Amino acid sequence: MSSYAVGIDLGGTNLKAALVHRENGIEEITQRPTEADQGPQHVVDRIAALADELRTQAPAEIRGIGIGSPGAINWERTTVTRPPNLPGWDSVNLTSLLREQLGDVAVILENDANVAGLGSAFHGAGRSVDSFIMVTLGTGVGGAIIYNNKIFRGSTGGAAEIGHMTIDYEGPYANTGVAGAIEGYIGQKFLSDHARDRLVNYPDSLLHDLVDGDLEQLNPRILYEAASEGDEAAERILAWAGHKLGCVLGAAINLLDIRTVVVGGGVSAAGDFILEPARETLPNFVMPGLRDDVTIRQEVLGNEVSLLGAARLAFEGREAHV
Amino acid sequence: MSSYAVGIDLGGTNLKAALVHRENGIEEITQRPTEADQGPQHVVDRIAALADELRTQAPAEIRGIGIGSPGAINWERTTVTRPPNLPGWDSVNLTSLLREQLGDVAVILENDANVAGLGSAFHGAGRSVDSFIMVTLGTGVGGAIIYNNKIFRGSTGGAAEIGHMTIDYEGPYANTGVAGAIEGYIGQKFLSDHARDRLVNYPDSLLHDLVDGDLEQLNPRILYEAASEGDEAAERILAWAGHKLGCVLGAAINLLDIRTVVVGGGVSAAGDFILEPARETLPNFVMPGLRDDVTIRQEVLGNEVSLLGAARLAFEGREAHV
Repeated sequence: MSSYAVGIDLGGTNLKAALVHRENGIEEITQRPTEADQGPQHVVDRIAALADELRTQAPAEIRGIGIGSPGAINWERTTVTRPPNLPGWDSVNLTSLLREQLGDVAVILENDANVAGLGSAFHGAGRSVDSFIMVTLGTGVGGAIIYNNKIFRGSTGGAAEIGHMTIDYEGPYANTGVAGAIEGYIGQKFLSDHARDRLVNYPDSLLHDLVDGDLEQLNPRILYEAASEGDEAAERILAWAGHKLGCVLGAAINLLDIRTVVVGGGVSAAGDFILEPARETLPNFVMPGLRDDVTIRQEVLGNEVSLLGAARLAFEGREAHV
Repeated sequence: MSSYAVGIDLGGTNLKAALVHRENGIEEITQRPTEADQGPQHVVDRIAALADELRTQAPAEIRGIGIGSPGAINWERTTVTRPPNLPGWDSVNLTSLLREQLGDVAVILENDANVAGLGSAFHGAGRSVDSFIMVTLGTGVGGAIIYNNKIFRGSTGGAAEIGHMTIDYEGPYANTGVAGAIEGYIGQKFLSDHARDRLVNYPDSLLHDLVDGDLEQLNPRILYEAASEGDEAAERILAWAGHKLGCVLGAAINLLDIRTVVVGGGVSAAGDFILEPARETLPNFVMPGLRDDVTIRQEVLGNEVSLLGAARLAFEGREAHV
């Protein structure tokens, strides 16, 4: 069996791809614009070209191509439906479209959050445990459940939608109409809104300077920057977010009895400013019998974790999920 | 392989046991007091006698003995730790203690909520689906996750503690110190407390008569009785409980992508007075992509489901869990 596979991260803005060696990790990495506005077939052509380029660089025939994609993936892991940020995509069978161009090669699709989880399990912060809950903090709040080093997919492949779990049944409505959904607190837009409102109380905060007085420019990265400079407002806002994160993770741990959490995604760059308060809150939302050893770690591999996870789909085949 | 097994339901008050045929279900059923106050060894002796009695009635050697027990069960499914309602039990290896008396027979332990789930999967309301979330409404709120007809146990065997999932991070503290835990709303004691407080507003409610003016006597069964008579207060109180149940089930479905819920346990006798409001609430707490086909069913098998599930542990062996 070949020790090489191609991993692809299909994003609304960029296509990233890597040639991955089973043990040694990424050997070659490349990136180009998705050009999503030109429709699905154009994007498929670009993925095919990218994959073909990388597989010709492999010293041996590749094991297959794994793709992390936004949107809902079908049970057979061939088709993506209505991925956000990819206009004009309804249901697209990437596996068969790519095989038309690339010939008889295994092409496996998986939800991008699940792919990040798989990558973390084999190469990242999740490597030292068999099971963990992955939370990705970005525009939205996504997640993956890794159970005995496999992706827990649920009945239809849609498991781990942590972002839509409520922490307050009378809380604010996030964009999907679920009251008190965690995404409505700590999704990038919602956290930035909260920060803006709260800054009324902190007229001297460094944050005002960092955005040149235009609070619409606030984002978690700027919050982190200010917090790193010791800005009290920024620290408190990020701590507020971490507290909410701890609440929802407690609920998830009660349900799954999986006690390690790995946090990744852009917002996680705020690191311990969010994660320390989350760690403080978490045990209070876990039943006493499951409280021991609950741990929150930060994934530090960044985008690589997605490419490694995508390639891992090809290495593991059906064994990638439970 | 033998088609017979013995299933045992170890309760704080009663020991129940059944001789179960793999296809035909319960062939013989028996019950006696647990006499838990006389300590673990006495109870073990009673379980052994009961199991021995039933296996001698089987036309063939039994496949094994399955036991549903309260408390935490170890990963090997041999030992129970600190079961509530069984005073003086710290860690008790039921498998080895029973084998001392019964000889070389398979003895498998599992948490009682998981056992009810397994029974439902093979014989009850869960039979027609591969995966479902079981919620048992009783003194506490317990649960089980059945995934492809197996028990999802989590990292240590403690999964599906639905009762401790929060639905309001600033909500009331249930008995385990988790703010807003669902058990703090709809656990038997908490629901009864809520009813009592709320009856101040309903001086003419039938409930006052049903408890002879002693509101300390209120319990979910009496609420159901009054609701069945058309009592508005009782109906509203049970609907309040159902609404809360719908909230937490939404969170669980988002995490698991398992869209069928089976509700069992004593309080579920209140049936549609709780379940209809839960059904109305549920979709509002599930993300749109997972909302289709969410279903809440009532388990109607009662205690039998636990005995059938316990015996099923023996039939399935290691295949009973994922």
